[in-house]
Amino acid sequence: MHSSRTDCLARDAADPLAPLRDAFALPAGVIYLDGNSLGARPKAAAARAAEVIEREWGNDLITSWNTAGWFDMPKRLGDRLAPLVGAQAGEVVVTDTTSINLFKALAGALAIQAADPRRVAIVTERSNFPTDIYMAEGLSAWLARGHTVRLVDSPGEIPAALGDDTAVLLLTHVNYRTGHMHDMAALTALAHQHGALAVWDLAHSAGAVPVDLHGAQADFAVGCTYKYLNGGPGAPAFIWVPARHQGAFTQPLSGWWGHATPFAMAPSFAPCAGIGRALCGTQPVVSLALVECGLDVFAQTDMAALRAKSLALTDLFIALVEEHCAGHPLELVTPREHARRGSHVSFTHPHGYAVMQALIARGVIGDYREPHIMRFGFTPLYTSFTEVWDAVAILKRILDDAAYDVNAARGAVT
Amino acid sequence: MHSSRTDCLARDAADPLAPLRDAFALPAGVIYLDGNSLGARPKAAAARAAEVIEREWGNDLITSWNTAGWFDMPKRLGDRLAPLVGAQAGEVVVTDTTSINLFKALAGALAIQAADPRRVAIVTERSNFPTDIYMAEGLSAWLARGHTVRLVDSPGEIPAALGDDTAVLLLTHVNYRTGHMHDMAALTALAHQHGALAVWDLAHSAGAVPVDLHGAQADFAVGCTYKYLNGGPGAPAFIWVPARHQGAFTQPLSGWWGHATPFAMAPSFAPCAGIGRALCGTQPVVSLALVECGLDVFAQTDMAALRAKSLALTDLFIALVEEHCAGHPLELVTPREHARRGSHVSFTHPHGYAVMQALIARGVIGDYREPHIMRFGFTPLYTSFTEVWDAVAILKRILDDAAYDVNAARGAVT
Repeated sequence: MHSSRTDCLARDAADPLAPLRDAFALPAGVIYLDGNSLGARPKAAAARAAEVIEREWGNDLITSWNTAGWFDMPKRLGDRLAPLVGAQAGEVVVTDTTSINLFKALAGALAIQAADPRRVAIVTERSNFPTDIYMAEGLSAWLARGHTVRLVDSPGEIPAALGDDTAVLLLTHVNYRTGHMHDMAALTALAHQHGALAVWDLAHSAGAVPVDLHGAQADFAVGCTYKYLNGGPGAPAFIWVPARHQGAFTQPLSGWWGHATPFAMAPSFAPCAGIGRALCGTQPVVSLALVECGLDVFAQTDMAALRAKSLALTDLFIALVEEHCAGHPLELVTPREHARRGSHVSFTHPHGYAVMQALIARGVIGDYREPHIMRFGFTPLYTSFTEVWDAVAILKRILDDAAYDVNAARGAVT
Repeated sequence: MHSSRTDCLARDAADPLAPLRDAFALPAGVIYLDGNSLGARPKAAAARAAEVIEREWGNDLITSWNTAGWFDMPKRLGDRLAPLVGAQAGEVVVTDTTSINLFKALAGALAIQAADPRRVAIVTERSNFPTDIYMAEGLSAWLARGHTVRLVDSPGEIPAALGDDTAVLLLTHVNYRTGHMHDMAALTALAHQHGALAVWDLAHSAGAVPVDLHGAQADFAVGCTYKYLNGGPGAPAFIWVPARHQGAFTQPLSGWWGHATPFAMAPSFAPCAGIGRALCGTQPVVSLALVECGLDVFAQTDMAALRAKSLALTDLFIALVEEHCAGHPLELVTPREHARRGSHVSFTHPHGYAVMQALIARGVIGDYREPHIMRFGFTPLYTSFTEVWDAVAILKRILDDAAYDVNAARGAVT
């Protein structure tokens, strides 16, 4: 496949999703390929924040807990998010952080599995996003009932790692480094064959790829709103507990927002019915409210259209890099197979960190992950085909000219 | 004591703190006596939010994790908050919710006490804010090592409830309903005499009354930023772990923000040194950033001056209610003794809910708590003596005219 910049301009002109870019404020002169880390700002976010701060907080004060719907916001936003991941209304709340929601989901799964004391293993991948492993370790250690976290080194090792001792298969659907996407339905079925429950982290999936939690018969899921969902930096995360598990769902972070009668101020915990029992304490209203600005944009399209464009963008990027940067020591680590690919593409380069710094200095914002991985996120709501072309042209120039500093100092990046 | 409105105007004119009110945006025609539930909006908050959203998020995107200090904000704000509660720099982080921070603090305390398996009791008050009890229940149940939550019915019962089986004395410093303030130093010493650790909830203390955590030799503390600290609705809470306990501090919410090397993406958890190990996951940056606007106002005064005015306001309110509303069935439930009084005053009335609704309808915003309790918060940063006078005058008129609807429908309030 040979493509030209003119072709890319034509594809953008014909792209039915192209007008959605206007919903986002992106800085001039920047090609933003890091929406998989921090989504771009919906233009509506500034006005929404001003409304929450000036009218709801400043003027209406405590009455806003009711009149502005602050108290119900985790559920209301959860209901709006649900269709993006194949969940039903009443099954999702937007609350707390991904790490903390994962703790709740794992705890809920282990509680269901407690009937069989042999089931002590949480199986996950060594390449999973570290906090998922850390939270599983923290929960396991505190239970002190022999729970272990079993790490596998590749997806192919998952089947052999499951057995009669397995309580939970914990997987991140799309790998944060490689962009590899698991077959959620097949792996969930495999877990169930072994009597394990399947807990899915959708951090790099929600808003990025179609997800059908019910279709896959998944057991629990958590995810992030500040990446592809464009909810704002560190915006509250979400947790999904399907209706079939809600009655049995119990978790140790039993705060008053999950109580059956939170304002009765009863001196003992009794969980409410439904998804509310996944709530804990008072939520950061301003950050939470901004999540809706991102969801409003998704309401103008659907995940099938977004997926089609995402695959077209990532296909184009892979093809252009391999054509124009041939001869440079780049290696694709993201699957070529569509069914196994998320919405970002990663290439290794021996000087990946330095090359990424050079790209950023020239306005192409991707990011870097050890070891040697340059990560490029493609967010079909606002990334254009022409930007893909221009990003590859800049990468080619950097590599051809060796215009990167192999001694570049490293800063923390998220 | 007889006071007149003219006296109150004179006190306001002479009040050195009066100019601080100008830092807050309060609606016209409202006497806001609910800063103990949701602090008023600092005027600076709107501009700060716009800066975070438009420049830091919208324009600078992921670079803001470093350049705008997003990643270090929990520690930086913790250092700024620390002096208000008698903590040192490096001992406080602003993060997550009060409920979740309490879970961490209790878990940390129980970990220290695990050396003695007899110590299984968490002693607290039945009248504690419910989520504190619920979190203690949740943690105890999940540990499944015989831990129990022992509730006492009055402060006087605390000594007898402590013993060789006590792991933790968990108290809220200022009671959310009655405004009763514990003697933190004496009760901490009592706990220590019994080999227990003292965990303090400062939700109604931080920014309201002087707190000296180190002077009291307290062990752990948590608190809220959205009440007297004016951090914004649901703004992230804080946790204090004194330097002497940090080495031994361990808690199950071991997310990547608490890791020694979060960006090394190591596949096993290793806590960082210092207060950072109380962190877990990515924080809601917009809400978190607004906490600083409240702290900026505190930097213009000190807790001793605020305490003097707070006591003057609550003394005046009690005296005026008892003088002008004599004959109505109001009962003061807040201690008259200064040393036992926080910064809010509660009166019961048989129709407390209806009377409070009538007050709110006339612009006097307090709140209601079961049973029969009308709660009035006095926030010396922005409450004036004349407002106290006017609030009591309105209360008197409502009571004299029986101008309240005893069948008023009840809504949820926080």
